[in-house]
Amino acid sequence: MNERQLIEYLTTFITPDTKGLIRGIGDDCAVIQKDDHLVWLLTMDTLVEGVHFDAAFHSPDKLGRKIVSVNISDIAAMAGKPMFMLLSIGMPAGFDATWFKSFVRGIMDACHEYGCQLIGGDTVANPNGLVCSLTVIGEVAPDLVVYRHGARPGDTVWVSGSLGFAAAGLALLQRTFEPHNRRWQPFREQHLDPVARVEVGQKLGASGLVHAMMDLSDGLATDLAHLCRQSGVGAKISFQALPGIGALKEVADAIGGDPEEWAVRGGDDYELLFTTAADAGDQLLAIGSSCGLQLSPVGTIVAGREVTLIRTQADGTQEEKVITYQGFDHFREKDEG
Amino acid sequence: MNERQLIEYLTTFITPDTKGLIRGIGDDCAVIQKDDHLVWLLTMDTLVEGVHFDAAFHSPDKLGRKIVSVNISDIAAMAGKPMFMLLSIGMPAGFDATWFKSFVRGIMDACHEYGCQLIGGDTVANPNGLVCSLTVIGEVAPDLVVYRHGARPGDTVWVSGSLGFAAAGLALLQRTFEPHNRRWQPFREQHLDPVARVEVGQKLGASGLVHAMMDLSDGLATDLAHLCRQSGVGAKISFQALPGIGALKEVADAIGGDPEEWAVRGGDDYELLFTTAADAGDQLLAIGSSCGLQLSPVGTIVAGREVTLIRTQADGTQEEKVITYQGFDHFREKDEG
Repeated sequence: MNERQLIEYLTTFITPDTKGLIRGIGDDCAVIQKDDHLVWLLTMDTLVEGVHFDAAFHSPDKLGRKIVSVNISDIAAMAGKPMFMLLSIGMPAGFDATWFKSFVRGIMDACHEYGCQLIGGDTVANPNGLVCSLTVIGEVAPDLVVYRHGARPGDTVWVSGSLGFAAAGLALLQRTFEPHNRRWQPFREQHLDPVARVEVGQKLGASGLVHAMMDLSDGLATDLAHLCRQSGVGAKISFQALPGIGALKEVADAIGGDPEEWAVRGGDDYELLFTTAADAGDQLLAIGSSCGLQLSPVGTIVAGREVTLIRTQADGTQEEKVITYQGFDHFREKDEG
Repeated sequence: MNERQLIEYLTTFITPDTKGLIRGIGDDCAVIQKDDHLVWLLTMDTLVEGVHFDAAFHSPDKLGRKIVSVNISDIAAMAGKPMFMLLSIGMPAGFDATWFKSFVRGIMDACHEYGCQLIGGDTVANPNGLVCSLTVIGEVAPDLVVYRHGARPGDTVWVSGSLGFAAAGLALLQRTFEPHNRRWQPFREQHLDPVARVEVGQKLGASGLVHAMMDLSDGLATDLAHLCRQSGVGAKISFQALPGIGALKEVADAIGGDPEEWAVRGGDDYELLFTTAADAGDQLLAIGSSCGLQLSPVGTIVAGREVTLIRTQADGTQEEKVITYQGFDHFREKDEG
């Protein structure tokens, strides 16, 4: 049983016609009716020391920030506004109070930046290290929610920001490579302190242009496969169009590693992945520009079920390979990292 | 830093005047406005293998049931009706699919019994064993919510069911004592498969008789101290009035152990603890009877800050001792169990 099979098994227990439930498992958030004007988006994530982060790289305040951003990214992915947060922290009994206070400070700073309020949670002992679960509640008007299942053949596939920077940053951190060289800072920061794309997510939702959206947590290959599966379509992605691929080559030249691996299969970027009609390009570039964030077309939705990566060789020929679900799976050995 | 100090530290970050927030940390649930007629109760708990349960005692389906009941107990404690649940499961990569399916089946059966629907969550790898976080959302009319902070001097202190059965049951399980003797079954079941007191909680809220309420998860000594602290009062408890104390003596006679320890400091009972005016007894007994559940007066709210246990000796003299916060603390060594 891998993670996807496990989630599919859990999904069989969801009763779609539950009163008040608009969308259960299968999207970035569950969606329930709040009142006549709004729905609530609910998301829950757990971070485990040694699996999702290495405490040697993360200062406690950055770790606190990241836990919040990772969760709020799911609200952004459905075009919502984060409102409330519940926090459950498991720690060893002899935990360091200074470390803990800095960690909580990071959580609270990030909450404040996103306009979200801590409202509850619990604390438990976990002898094996830090485990932290967050539940975030966001709100949005029901007609502005963007789901994963609306992609149609002919749509353009877009991403925000750059891809693979978090994976490249982790590789830099693992090698302790030039830790004070500012040239590598954007990569390290993308791993240590990613930003949830709340503003652009809300603008994309409000534009009415977006057919399907989700956030990139497990890498393009896996996340686009999720979106395609939910939509009943396939996708073709152009390697050369992936934003940031040139910068990744610089990192690879410096420390080794594979830019394609980072950009296509690397997780943890928390950028948005979405599809729109092919003729919406100018409006999308304007939305990105209004948020100070690059939005880039990277491919096309097609009929079928596979996600394919197309790479143009130096001689002009095209290499195609299937990359469906080749990203991060919690219950498989990680391909890279 | 113990658990209470840690929670108090977190509480300093809650902004009480947040729009839509009625009650943040400090009660069994956070309370937020849903619409003009209802509030939502939100609670989150994490269970850690080896801390909250021993997988050797719990069959996977019972463990799944318990995780649900423990969370829903917080909704019951504020007189709410459980509606929706989010589930986050962390497990080792090589987990047993049969075990997992039985665990999920237990979760879903319990959800169904409580009228609650799974709507989302996530799954992650945790190399150190099972970690399971649940968020439960309940609803209730705003004027029927019962908080911890309403107890007044002169109030009678009540509990539902029996106290200490879970702790005695754990002692029986740890000693593998007469595992097939039905005489010990109620104790083992209270530990393995506690029942969240949803029906009686709702009736108590609807009665308007209850001044303060919470559930008993960390033992009477600690939980009553929480309730007293929130209400700015103290309490005197009668050892002889504790329901089930006679049955606990039978267990102690059979395997050793201390009935007072189990009843006063033992956690995991998930009964309700509440206070009412002193003259409400008959109505409360009727409510209990209508739910097939014994409600018992066990003491009195007094001015002050301490929780005191009064024990009448054979010679008629009374022994008094302060038991404030002597129950379970996740970040202190457990006194017993």
